[in-house]
Amino acid sequence: MTERDFIARHLAPLATSQAARGLADDAAVWLPPLGRELVFTHDVLAQGVHYLPDDPPGDVAWKLLAVNLSDLAAMAATPAGVLLGLAGPDDAAWRVAFTVGLGRALDHFGVALWGGDTVSGIAAHVLGLTAIGWVQPGRALGRAGAQPGDALWVSGTIGDAGLGLAVAQGRAPYDRALLNRFRRPTPRLALGAVLGGVASAGMDVSDGLLIDAQRLAAASGIGLAIALDAVPLGRPATGVDDLLARVTAGDDYELLFTAPADVDIAALAGPSRTPVTRIGAVMAGSGLSLSHAGQPITTPARLGWEHR
Amino acid sequence: MTERDFIARHLAPLATSQAARGLADDAAVWLPPLGRELVFTHDVLAQGVHYLPDDPPGDVAWKLLAVNLSDLAAMAATPAGVLLGLAGPDDAAWRVAFTVGLGRALDHFGVALWGGDTVSGIAAHVLGLTAIGWVQPGRALGRAGAQPGDALWVSGTIGDAGLGLAVAQGRAPYDRALLNRFRRPTPRLALGAVLGGVASAGMDVSDGLLIDAQRLAAASGIGLAIALDAVPLGRPATGVDDLLARVTAGDDYELLFTAPADVDIAALAGPSRTPVTRIGAVMAGSGLSLSHAGQPITTPARLGWEHR
Repeated sequence: MTERDFIARHLAPLATSQAARGLADDAAVWLPPLGRELVFTHDVLAQGVHYLPDDPPGDVAWKLLAVNLSDLAAMAATPAGVLLGLAGPDDAAWRVAFTVGLGRALDHFGVALWGGDTVSGIAAHVLGLTAIGWVQPGRALGRAGAQPGDALWVSGTIGDAGLGLAVAQGRAPYDRALLNRFRRPTPRLALGAVLGGVASAGMDVSDGLLIDAQRLAAASGIGLAIALDAVPLGRPATGVDDLLARVTAGDDYELLFTAPADVDIAALAGPSRTPVTRIGAVMAGSGLSLSHAGQPITTPARLGWEHR
Repeated sequence: MTERDFIARHLAPLATSQAARGLADDAAVWLPPLGRELVFTHDVLAQGVHYLPDDPPGDVAWKLLAVNLSDLAAMAATPAGVLLGLAGPDDAAWRVAFTVGLGRALDHFGVALWGGDTVSGIAAHVLGLTAIGWVQPGRALGRAGAQPGDALWVSGTIGDAGLGLAVAQGRAPYDRALLNRFRRPTPRLALGAVLGGVASAGMDVSDGLLIDAQRLAAASGIGLAIALDAVPLGRPATGVDDLLARVTAGDDYELLFTAPADVDIAALAGPSRTPVTRIGAVMAGSGLSLSHAGQPITTPARLGWEHR
């Protein structure tokens, strides 16, 4: 199958938006919604680095879209369209399965394929996706802005994707729910959209709760006190060491955010049907202060994934 | 050097636009110009596929930006910002040289880096770039729209990049000007911007003049008569076979466009200081009709690069 045939048969059906011009031109053309700021992100997933070579291609497509939409959610943005960069070996079966999965994921999140590029003749897949969204002017979230006295919140549950990675690698018994947390993360778009203009700072948790909390603290120039026993878990922890493994595992794609202590975040999050949990507070100073059942816990040396 | 250090030291200085937020957040935020349509493209360059492994990294960066800006030019758009996906081996020297070159290219074209992603641990470089631009509503060019009776035009000269590829591969004597045509193409942004709303159809010539002309003809549902002896060349051709080699070589990144025969394209193109040459006409029918000095020429079997 030539690139041209592959695009016409498998990608063009995903290009349902008028902006894509049927993938027939050199670029997409989009009239943005009036009076909105636009939000742009581009994340790459590489075979063997971000996912395992035998992960189902449809799940890889889901994850590629989800991690990018999670970046939009973290900025309080609503997605509109995506561009795909699909580079890899000349493996038609993998590509078709990937494309079917991408179509389902795009449908699920109500986003259209606007364009992109395909390249074959590469040893391993390198998948890039650009996601474009919009936000009310001035309501985009950022990592800076947390103020001493604010409460620290997190959505969903933490550490499940790390447990799912162990399942995928055969280090833990099969568990479909955990595997799905690793392979098919859920970007918190509905929650993110209501946090714009309300939360004082926010980001998505992609490399581990602690390392990402430390980054938010550094960007805001504050310290964060985190009650580890308040961190919501999908499966009970067997002790503090297990708990520390959960909060330093990656791929959660939950939202971590701060808000003035008197804002009723739970009520605000209600319509988005996204669980939210208060796990700490913003303090003057810097870095992380961890506790468990009221007792201080030494901050571990490794806080999460550090990309080399 | 960690990814974080590389981004902070080498990419953040390129993120001169407020939209990039210093590369410190999960995404870029941009207030688009009022009353404009936005144009989006994403092209990938892969080592060993689109460029030679020993091509200078700064030239690879130039080409990555230029091929994407050429897609914007083909749509009559003016560029605003780009997102970079940089995946490859952990080769700090290559990356730094690439980044220096990207910075120079961005400066040259007046475009800012808004964001992106870096990945190491990949065998060979796979470089993705998303370019975002804007155009007056309704003035974006497309491949459809050419009408019988229109004139066919091309910018600059054709086939020089193919000669430059031969130089780069050691199949032809060193020639800096030709090598630059292959490694450092010039996107025709100023010309493209004036063609919006004037040309009836347009695209950039990336895979060979003839194959791209055939694509424009197919998209517009017309035929194109091309006078091969009118095609502008950087170096004289030694005969019709040599001429056919030029018009089927890739990487020109010139603009190919049609316009009503009474439009003074040369006058319109004047301020952009871009040479334009009338090379043929649009006819009812389909496909290409080639001639040389008034005599018909059989259309060759291979029209240019067909991506497998």
